[in-house]
Amino acid sequence: MANASGGGTIQLHEFAREFTLKIYTPGYGDWAVLGHSGNVEATFRCLATLCNPGDSILVEEWTFPSVLATAKPMGLKPVSVKMDGQGMTAADLERVLSTWNENLQGKRPHVMYTVPIGQNPTGAQMGAKRKLAIYDICVRYDIIIIEDDPYYFLQEGAYVPKALRPAKIQSQSEDVDDPEGFIKSLAPSYPKFDYQGRVIRLDSFSKIIAPGSRMGWFTCNPVFAERLDRLGETTTQAPSGFSQAIIIQLVAKQWGMKKFIRWLQDLRGEYTSRRDFIIDTIHELFDVLPSSGTSGESFPESLPSMIAYIKESTISESKDSKVVMNRKTPLFTFIPPTSGMFLWIKFHVGQYTILKPGETLTEHIFINLVKEGLLIAPGTLFSVNELESGEAFGRIAFSNGSREQLLEGLKVLERVMRKYTSGII
Amino acid sequence: MANASGGGTIQLHEFAREFTLKIYTPGYGDWAVLGHSGNVEATFRCLATLCNPGDSILVEEWTFPSVLATAKPMGLKPVSVKMDGQGMTAADLERVLSTWNENLQGKRPHVMYTVPIGQNPTGAQMGAKRKLAIYDICVRYDIIIIEDDPYYFLQEGAYVPKALRPAKIQSQSEDVDDPEGFIKSLAPSYPKFDYQGRVIRLDSFSKIIAPGSRMGWFTCNPVFAERLDRLGETTTQAPSGFSQAIIIQLVAKQWGMKKFIRWLQDLRGEYTSRRDFIIDTIHELFDVLPSSGTSGESFPESLPSMIAYIKESTISESKDSKVVMNRKTPLFTFIPPTSGMFLWIKFHVGQYTILKPGETLTEHIFINLVKEGLLIAPGTLFSVNELESGEAFGRIAFSNGSREQLLEGLKVLERVMRKYTSGII
Repeated sequence: MANASGGGTIQLHEFAREFTLKIYTPGYGDWAVLGHSGNVEATFRCLATLCNPGDSILVEEWTFPSVLATAKPMGLKPVSVKMDGQGMTAADLERVLSTWNENLQGKRPHVMYTVPIGQNPTGAQMGAKRKLAIYDICVRYDIIIIEDDPYYFLQEGAYVPKALRPAKIQSQSEDVDDPEGFIKSLAPSYPKFDYQGRVIRLDSFSKIIAPGSRMGWFTCNPVFAERLDRLGETTTQAPSGFSQAIIIQLVAKQWGMKKFIRWLQDLRGEYTSRRDFIIDTIHELFDVLPSSGTSGESFPESLPSMIAYIKESTISESKDSKVVMNRKTPLFTFIPPTSGMFLWIKFHVGQYTILKPGETLTEHIFINLVKEGLLIAPGTLFSVNELESGEAFGRIAFSNGSREQLLEGLKVLERVMRKYTSGII
Repeated sequence: MANASGGGTIQLHEFAREFTLKIYTPGYGDWAVLGHSGNVEATFRCLATLCNPGDSILVEEWTFPSVLATAKPMGLKPVSVKMDGQGMTAADLERVLSTWNENLQGKRPHVMYTVPIGQNPTGAQMGAKRKLAIYDICVRYDIIIIEDDPYYFLQEGAYVPKALRPAKIQSQSEDVDDPEGFIKSLAPSYPKFDYQGRVIRLDSFSKIIAPGSRMGWFTCNPVFAERLDRLGETTTQAPSGFSQAIIIQLVAKQWGMKKFIRWLQDLRGEYTSRRDFIIDTIHELFDVLPSSGTSGESFPESLPSMIAYIKESTISESKDSKVVMNRKTPLFTFIPPTSGMFLWIKFHVGQYTILKPGETLTEHIFINLVKEGLLIAPGTLFSVNELESGEAFGRIAFSNGSREQLLEGLKVLERVMRKYTSGII
């Protein structure tokens, strides 16, 4: 295993190497690790190192807004690849690349940015088979993969309805002292399939130790690591010495690998419980039915989308004839997330309201939710392409807040959706 | 006072505002502060924000290597301005700008990068009059000044020979409890003269609290601050939360402003003592005489340069006829630094040795010093322009190491210089 010269202390690099070897098991021998100042800084360094102005880069059709904001001033053009419940589809990636016309579209992309686990914003999670298929396409078209993977350990698995869950919880708690079983239960990361050194994996401590620690590491081939280190020398140099001292002392010295992995396992448990809580609560506040067909391209066929309606049992209390009339029309669609910290929803309430000229449905919903006290991330932030008028998406974070606050937030959602159906907003 | 939205906690920004107002007293009202991840990162952000590929930027003829390494991949062309004992000269700046030929040289520079106090590598310190003259030129030619000033508090003052010093030390220790007197004793920073908002001042905690803290702040006009913050959002976001928590807790909460300034005063005292120690030691190990004329453009007329020779009193012990013969020829020239942590020296030993083809005198000296155990920074690192063959400079840091180690290092310097004069290397 090679190592770059800078980018952090020996202790950080030793820890990163040991952890990467144990958890991600890269598919080749001479991979390197290099400290960075958080995955946003790391993504910037990858794009600045690998791309030239005018280049196109491949991204999921819904993606982390920061990568779009990073790419634009560099003169890079994000090219979206369609998604399903596992994130980016191999079929659409193949389509984009095989039909690429350099005369019309400029140079074919040679870099991909992807968030394969707990995808931001959709919460999609990519399994081994899909990753292998995408990796193979990247080999054929010579694409470098930037795997931004801060949510890797928040793999919550499929949502199980509350009534069916106790047995499941019991079986989960049984393997709490089985770190090897936990590691095996995780979807593999791209480096596992990387036999050509074309993956740059980005790890971060921000989602697993403390937000704002501005510290993580690259795992990639030593040639890339050396170049990334050179750019680091004229920008961040290394993660903060305080971050390094505190985090490495905690995870490597005080805890050690076994306890740290146990911590990650508990963290997954906590996020699973939060995911379950918000999906359970949506079922309590709305009537939720599986989608019979597809519900828009952003909601895939491979995982069942759920559609939320006004709760039938509350209709009789309603004196509003419009609400009664609209009780069978969908409010929003969602897929219970299988990883990460976000619930992604598609709103269908545009039919109940008339937008002002220039106003978008996303803004309209966003503002009405904020007025009632719920702040969501408007879907437009995450969209590589222009949305069609009347389309609206939103991202709800369940990473923060008490159960009471999450409940309160979802009650706001219910109240505002009901207002739409009554035609008063 | 306006403030940017990101780049750190409210506590960091409050502290930075209070400190800036107290120490640097900017010349206009609506200046902003913004946290950054160290002055190297901050310089990168300034250049990336203010410059386009192909632009020329003004720098001192000897400058911090990192800014050269930052500028080059951005396609920026550093243009050197001649220096004297106060750093960049106003006369040469005026010459560079007034004789600029856009047909031959491309667009006239609109950005200057300068280290005005404890200049790296020369240790030069710029006073109020020079700064005002340079600022006025920048007004006329519309130049933005990036003031990289991490050594601001290490203003050691003129070197006083050991025999004359006790009284001076006593008078210094008398005002240890006079923070206002200490502040008044410091050369002003560019923002004091900045009535147009054309200065971006970079403060860092790395030289005054802990190296590697990767934390400091910009002081500049709010329009620049907003733009610098936008680039921060897609790179470092904010300094490490751990750095912010620890440093601000220490300086703002535990110490408070008065004790922090006292700390800075003590720090100046420690660096003054170190500077005195190495210059005293050079006087002990060498015969040191003031230069009668000028000793090369890098050593100014406005401060007396000192020339070091083989110590006459050791010659009688020498059995080497060449050393005896060469005892009146200069070994190196230096100016006792008045601020910062570096001693800059120009070597004259090229006359005693024959270089291999392709070898530079700088390399030759560097390697011979390293062999004996002294690591200096080779002058070529800091040079904007190509050195003439036979020219060699070096930077000696006195920031680190015990007095014993500093003494040992200077003894190596003496031994190696003597070897040159004896013709054996």
